[in-house]
Amino acid sequence: VERIHQSFSRQGFMKTLGAEIESVEPGKVTLTCAFAEGLTQQHGLLHGGVLASLADVACGYAALSTMPPEREVLTVEFKINFLKSAKTKSLVAVGQVLQSGRTLTVCEGTVFDETRTRAIARMTTTMISVASTTGA
Amino acid sequence: VERIHQSFSRQGFMKTLGAEIESVEPGKVTLTCAFAEGLTQQHGLLHGGVLASLADVACGYAALSTMPPEREVLTVEFKINFLKSAKTKSLVAVGQVLQSGRTLTVCEGTVFDETRTRAIARMTTTMISVASTTGA
Amino acid sequence: VERIHQSFSRQGFMKTLGAEIESVEPGKVTLTCAFAEGLTQQHGLLHGGVLASLADVACGYAALSTMPPEREVLTVEFKINFLKSAKTKSLVAVGQVLQSGRTLTVCEGTVFDETRTRAIARMTTTMISVASTTGA
Amino acid sequence: VERIHQSFSRQGFMKTLGAEIESVEPGKVTLTCAFAEGLTQQHGLLHGGVLASLADVACGYAALSTMPPEREVLTVEFKINFLKSAKTKSLVAVGQVLQSGRTLTVCEGTVFDETRTRAIARMTTTMISVASTTGA
Repeated sequence: VERIHQSFSRQGFMKTLGAEIESVEPGKVTLTCAFAEGLTQQHGLLHGGVLASLADVACGYAALSTMPPEREVLTVEFKINFLKSAKTKSLVAVGQVLQSGRTLTVCEGTVFDETRTRAIARMTTTMISVASTTGA
Repeated sequence: VERIHQSFSRQGFMKTLGAEIESVEPGKVTLTCAFAEGLTQQHGLLHGGVLASLADVACGYAALSTMPPEREVLTVEFKINFLKSAKTKSLVAVGQVLQSGRTLTVCEGTVFDETRTRAIARMTTTMISVASTTGA
Repeated sequence: VERIHQSFSRQGFMKTLGAEIESVEPGKVTLTCAFAEGLTQQHGLLHGGVLASLADVACGYAALSTMPPEREVLTVEFKINFLKSAKTKSLVAVGQVLQSGRTLTVCEGTVFDETRTRAIARMTTTMISVASTTGA
Repeated sequence: VERIHQSFSRQGFMKTLGAEIESVEPGKVTLTCAFAEGLTQQHGLLHGGVLASLADVACGYAALSTMPPEREVLTVEFKINFLKSAKTKSLVAVGQVLQSGRTLTVCEGTVFDETRTRAIARMTTTMISVASTTGA
C-alpha cells in the first residue's frame, strides 16, 4: 500500500488532475477526482482523456498491488468505451485485476460518476511487469 | 478549420496540457504538446494518459474536419498501444480518418516524439456524429 | 428468442464451428461449442479466432435481444484479451449488454472453458443498431 | 519462411477456413481466403469472425517472421474495427509488424476485399514471444 502511495505521489500528472487514492486492496485500487474547469472538453464536461487517465492509473496500481516489491508495471495497451456523458461533480475510477500472470496482467477499469453506481466508462488493459528502476 | 480552432479553445483540458493545434487538413489533424512536470508519470516521463488524450483529440478533430457544420463528434471508444517510452521534450499527435461513414467514423492516431518520426503510441478510435449542441 | 434462433441458424459459420445457442435472456446470450480438430491452432488447442467469433456472436445476440423486431445489429468493433490457453473440450461464451443506447450498444463477452468458471478470454464490443434487411 | 508454412499447415482452423499463405516477408505476411457458404453470417456475407481470425494469424506470423527459430508467438489481445461490409468473393489479410520488442510485438492487420485495395477491417494486436514448444 505504501509503495503505491509513494509512486502515486511522484506522478505530476495525477497532481494536475487533482486525483487521489481512495483505497488499495490486493488486486483492486480506487481513485477519485473532482470536477475542475481545467479538465473539461468543449462542452464543459469532464474530458474523456481524464477518464481514461484515471482508469489506466487505477488499473496499473491494481496490477502493482499483486506484485513483489522489486517489480513495477507499465501499460502495454488499453481500450476504453465511453458509456455515458460525464455530467458529474466527481469521478470514481476502480481498477481490478482480471488475470494475473508472471509477465502480463490484464485489468478492467470502471469509471463511475458521483453516484458511484452509474458507470460512465469501461476499460480493459494489459500491463507488463518489469524490474523496478526507482530504487525504492 | 475555424470551427475546429474554436472548439479546441473551449477545451479546458487542452489548455491544462498546453496542447496546440499545428495543422488542420481534411481528414487529418496534428497537435503538439511540450513536456511539463505536471504531465509526468512516476519516472518523470510524459504520462500515457497525456499521449492518449492528445491522440483522441487529434482523431476527433480529424473526424470533425470531414463533417458538415451542424454536426459534431463524440468518442465512442479508443484503443491505444504504447510502443516506446515517452522520453521526449515534446509530443506530436497526428489523427487521421480511416473510414468515414454517415454515423460512425474510424480514425487512427499516432503519437510521435520530438523527432517527429519515432512513433511512441498508436491509437484506433470510433467516433460518432451527433447534432451540434454548441449553437455554432 | 425465436428471432435469435432463426438468425443464428442462417449463419453458415456457426454451423462450421458447431456452435449452439444454450440460452437467451434479455441482454444475455450463452453459446457453446465443442472441441474439434478443425478448430485448432498449431498446438492442437482451440484457435483464438474461434473464441473471438463465439464471443462476438454471443454479444451480438445479447444486443439484439434488447431491440425491437425491426432492428438488427452489426459489430462495429471488438477487442479481446486472451487470458489462459484454451485447453478444453468445449467452450462456453457468454455475451452481456453493458450499455444500451438508441444507436450503439456496448457488450462484454466472456469465454469459459468446460468448467464454466475458468474465464479464458474477455471481450468488449460496440454494436450498432440498423434497420432489419432480412424481411423477417 | 519454411517455419511459418509448417506452423500454418498444423492449424486445423486455417484448413477449415480454406486460408492460404500468399507471401511471407520479414515483418509482413499476407493470407488469402475464398468465399464459402460455411464462412457466412446471417446475410450470406463473410463472417466478422473469419476476418478477425485471418488478420490475427497474418499478424502472428508477421511477428514470428522477425523472431529467432527457438521462439514462437501467442496473441495477447487484438482489437478489430469493421470498416465496410464483406461483400466479396475473397479476402486478403495483411499483417505487419509495427513495433518489435524482446518480449512483446505490436502488429497491425488489414483485411481487403477481392479488389485488394478496399480495406474492410483493421486490427491492432499485441503478440508475446515465448519459448518454442513444438520441438521444430
